[in-house]
Amino acid sequence: MKIPLMKEILKTNDQVASENRAMFDSERIFSLNLMASPGAGKTSLILATVERIPRDIKAGVIEGDVASSLDAQIIASRGIPVVQINTGGGCHLDAPMVRSALSKLPLKEINLLFVENVGNLVCPAYFPLGTHLNVVIASVPEGQDKPYKYPDIFTAADVVILNKIDLLPLVDFDTEHFKRGIFMVNPEAPIFPLSCKTGQGFEEWVKWLLTKLRSAFL
Amino acid sequence: MKIPLMKEILKTNDQVASENRAMFDSERIFSLNLMASPGAGKTSLILATVERIPRDIKAGVIEGDVASSLDAQIIASRGIPVVQINTGGGCHLDAPMVRSALSKLPLKEINLLFVENVGNLVCPAYFPLGTHLNVVIASVPEGQDKPYKYPDIFTAADVVILNKIDLLPLVDFDTEHFKRGIFMVNPEAPIFPLSCKTGQGFEEWVKWLLTKLRSAFL
Repeated sequence: MKIPLMKEILKTNDQVASENRAMFDSERIFSLNLMASPGAGKTSLILATVERIPRDIKAGVIEGDVASSLDAQIIASRGIPVVQINTGGGCHLDAPMVRSALSKLPLKEINLLFVENVGNLVCPAYFPLGTHLNVVIASVPEGQDKPYKYPDIFTAADVVILNKIDLLPLVDFDTEHFKRGIFMVNPEAPIFPLSCKTGQGFEEWVKWLLTKLRSAFL
Repeated sequence: MKIPLMKEILKTNDQVASENRAMFDSERIFSLNLMASPGAGKTSLILATVERIPRDIKAGVIEGDVASSLDAQIIASRGIPVVQINTGGGCHLDAPMVRSALSKLPLKEINLLFVENVGNLVCPAYFPLGTHLNVVIASVPEGQDKPYKYPDIFTAADVVILNKIDLLPLVDFDTEHFKRGIFMVNPEAPIFPLSCKTGQGFEEWVKWLLTKLRSAFL
């Protein structure tokens, strides 16, 4: 098996990402690429967000995992249309995988699509999927140094979620240091501290998301 | 830039890993490859372990990060010899990086070498570094499903650490489900639940590690 130039891979990815975006726009589907470390709360964010959006906004999910369909099962059990992508050993989703998954979703019934990337703070940064927003989720127990150690993914973010703030009183986490780290690489990205467990902080996040969704298809 | 065959990359890696192992053996350095998600506690495990080993065992560290030298600075501040590898965008260490770092360490003064891999539960599994032990660290807030979703890295483990057990009363975590997931892919690997913060569980881990170290060079 011959592996083509890395540049070619990225060029092909970006080309397909543009095609994905064109499809999202023509179908009027607002789409999010959720990127995070393993266990930061990607699936929890999807579920807790869907619970809080108006009923006329219909969600769909593309689930990316190295293996298993555990998260897809949880999402399907809530009545949300979902397609599972298993990457085998692959450490990130790419735009062609998303294109292929789109053909298996009831696109006409979806207004808001969550694409849950593989849990990884490195490689997903380099493979845009064509979504409207790149959402990076960090979580309190991971520590406040993540933007300094994994700058590229925070640079690629349109918005940053800080999850598990219910644990703030229990672990050492310097929120200001975390925010400064993001500001250094990405001064534009809003940051939403919240807890998928308690619901704290969701009002601001959902309000912001709905504003973005509504302004996308004016 | 031409990228060679992936098989060739892995073959070259494994060849250099063997050479690294030969050097560790000839220098009588017991070596560990620490793999984990971002923020699971790799640096904390190094520091908490070094505090608890006999003084005649001298530690050294190779720090792998995408960017920054934050962890290396912490380790150096404790008087432990350390070399930083920054991978740029690379999502894992490989054996040639480790070989290159070894030349910058005072090998004659080291009996126990920790190689801290890039925070990632996917790719490090495929690149052995030549160390005596692959140590995979999971942490309670990441959730009990990690062995099911990232099976390859748990398959590659010689030992699994479950860190942050001080948070067990505060988050939903099914320890038995976690252990069953590891047992399914790797029935041989011992599992040490512990807390780098409180020190709970360290006695068993350090005792096991010292037994391995001493039996390696009998």
